[in-house]
Amino acid sequence: MLSPSAALGTGFSRISVIGLGLIGSSLLLAIREAMPTVTLIGHDASPDVRETARRLKLADAITDTAGAAVADADLVILCVPVRAMADVAASIRDDLPPEAIISDVGSCKAEILASLTAALPHHRVIPAHPVAGTENSGPEAGFASLFTGRWCIITPPAEADPAAVARIADLWREVGALVETMDAAHHDLVLAVTSHLPHLIAYTIVGTASDLEDVTRSEVIKYSAGGFRDFTRIAASDPTMWRDVFLSNKDAVLEMLQRFSEDLSALQRAIRWNDGDALFNLFTRTRAIRRSIIEEGQDDPAPDFGRSHP
Amino acid sequence: MLSPSAALGTGFSRISVIGLGLIGSSLLLAIREAMPTVTLIGHDASPDVRETARRLKLADAITDTAGAAVADADLVILCVPVRAMADVAASIRDDLPPEAIISDVGSCKAEILASLTAALPHHRVIPAHPVAGTENSGPEAGFASLFTGRWCIITPPAEADPAAVARIADLWREVGALVETMDAAHHDLVLAVTSHLPHLIAYTIVGTASDLEDVTRSEVIKYSAGGFRDFTRIAASDPTMWRDVFLSNKDAVLEMLQRFSEDLSALQRAIRWNDGDALFNLFTRTRAIRRSIIEEGQDDPAPDFGRSHP
Ligand SMILES: NC(=O)c1ccc[n+]([C@@H]2O[C@H](COP(=O)([O-])OP(=O)(O)OC[C@H]3O[C@@H](n4cnc5c(N)ncnc54)[C@H](OP(=O)(O)O)[C@@H]3O)[C@@H](O)[C@H]2O)c1
Ligand SMILES: NC(=O)c1ccc[n+]([C@@H]2O[C@H](COP(=O)([O-])OP(=O)(O)OC[C@H]3O[C@@H](n4cnc5c(N)ncnc54)[C@H](OP(=O)(O)O)[C@@H]3O)[C@@H](O)[C@H]2O)c1
Repeated sequence: MLSPSAALGTGFSRISVIGLGLIGSSLLLAIREAMPTVTLIGHDASPDVRETARRLKLADAITDTAGAAVADADLVILCVPVRAMADVAASIRDDLPPEAIISDVGSCKAEILASLTAALPHHRVIPAHPVAGTENSGPEAGFASLFTGRWCIITPPAEADPAAVARIADLWREVGALVETMDAAHHDLVLAVTSHLPHLIAYTIVGTASDLEDVTRSEVIKYSAGGFRDFTRIAASDPTMWRDVFLSNKDAVLEMLQRFSEDLSALQRAIRWNDGDALFNLFTRTRAIRRSIIEEGQDDPAPDFGRSHP
Repeated sequence: MLSPSAALGTGFSRISVIGLGLIGSSLLLAIREAMPTVTLIGHDASPDVRETARRLKLADAITDTAGAAVADADLVILCVPVRAMADVAASIRDDLPPEAIISDVGSCKAEILASLTAALPHHRVIPAHPVAGTENSGPEAGFASLFTGRWCIITPPAEADPAAVARIADLWREVGALVETMDAAHHDLVLAVTSHLPHLIAYTIVGTASDLEDVTRSEVIKYSAGGFRDFTRIAASDPTMWRDVFLSNKDAVLEMLQRFSEDLSALQRAIRWNDGDALFNLFTRTRAIRRSIIEEGQDDPAPDFGRSHP
């Protein structure tokens, strides 16, 4: 639904999205639904993705070059893997209108903020990160309600134009997100624990399970409903995206990993020494967080995520 | 639906379930649905649970003592925490009919097999483990379709009566499960990787996230949709049950934990040395397992487990 005040609020009339995977396609669909009068232009490096995007009518036009996509845009949102952001910024520099605002959706912010402001020193760069996604990638994985009720974190540079920040915030509210602002370094620390470390651990355990000699792969699959299958969902996420995340947010990820490893060693020790009380106490303490996440609308309260029981 | 041949197959006419939590109550509901002519008797150590079980009409009778529950039973299934099994077995010894078969649903099998056969040396003990569950516990969490399409692993002792094993297998098939038989030690190794290690890691990471100084608890909750929230579901599982599992399956859990830690160190090193190829290769390899789990009907193919997007 288009609320007139909000449309005035964002004030964008032509929005370009570069990178038409899960996030880019979802964003286009969500903007189309919330703000139907905005002109939408898309571009992706991959000809196949562009063809799919045209077939799905994700935008009013899908251009063959990034430069063509941004000419006349008043907002450009980069939705490519984290480490591709700087190249895309360089490739659009010459075509970008001087008044255009540049934003992105990358999962780490400090490095992106630095590289985008370096590549586009005369433009207003307002990075953002919608904390929403699924394990699927590509243009066909997108859906308009992906951001509904999820948080989008805006990480403006210290000297950012407050009006530009407000317009980016309004855009995300229009597509259903809740908006928070913080500095890029703090964002990277928070997301290291709520997203990057969980992915790293999921990838590791799925790798560990694949490499066993005494337990077959078929056994791992058959008995995965004991808990393992949850990790396989996360570990099915896009390899390029996640490689870039870990390289880009290296320091915060290594810091969180260090803490996790210490805590895991303590638990290992409790098991080795039959310290049932230590185990029981930790296992009791961790229950409360789940309750809060559900109370705050950040997960499905149904048992087992509401999975279908065939 | 009752299929006459299957009813003949199991041949049980009076089944006792001791422990009326998630698994015990689900089993009663599932047997009631699949084999409506069987008499069902339940008992739980907790008066509150017994009262709830009566209110929910989980069985034809809920008895105040374990002994009363098993008198005249031809099958007794223990559905209590792993380390409570031996006590329950001792408490029913004097009332147990000599022909009764004893089974259980515990998550680890070697220790239970040893303790049940020690406590009931003159009875046929046929342990089993349905690999199915949710993060909820207690009698109100149960539902009849919990075992549908899931595997139940039977771990009979070497000298087990094949007829008794076949009857237990038929019972689980009747309630919708797929049945596999293996020795208890191998079961414990397989489940250490597909269930116990994932739970241990989930408990650890949720603990790590709760203990940070630079990231607030409220931030952890708000941005949990980045992956963390999945771990909180598993880490909301019953503390007593899981304490018992780790103490009972200590050796296999420590072995898997060791392998996991080595693999995690390798990944940590790859991040530290910016080895993007190593990351990319692992992240590509882990995708295949998810596909197989979905193909074999062991998880919901919908993105994000089919979670509701509000
Ligand atoms: N997935 C999530 O859960 C999630 C959540 C929040 C934020 N993010 C962030 O959102 C961004 C996109 O992620 P995604 O999940 O949408 O990934 P995705 O589905 O893999 O889509 C990325 C798209 O960008 C294209 N691309 C790569 N390099 C490009 C370039 N130089 N110029 C133009 N297009 C290029 C890719 O084409 P090719 O496939 O041909 O390379 C692909 O179509 C990433 O920065 C990620 O960190 C992701
Ligand atoms: N949850 C799963 O995902 C899952 C899956 C497969 C197998 N299992 C196994 O199934 C068994 C039961 O687990 P659950 O999830 O059903 O746990 P639950 O919901 O906590 O239920 C266990 C019940 O047993 C009762 N109990 C404890 N000690 C007892 C005793 N000595 N005599 C009689 N009743 C007693 C408990 O009462 P109080 O609460 O008053 O102690 C509780 O009502 C465990 O061995 C577990 O390893 C669980």
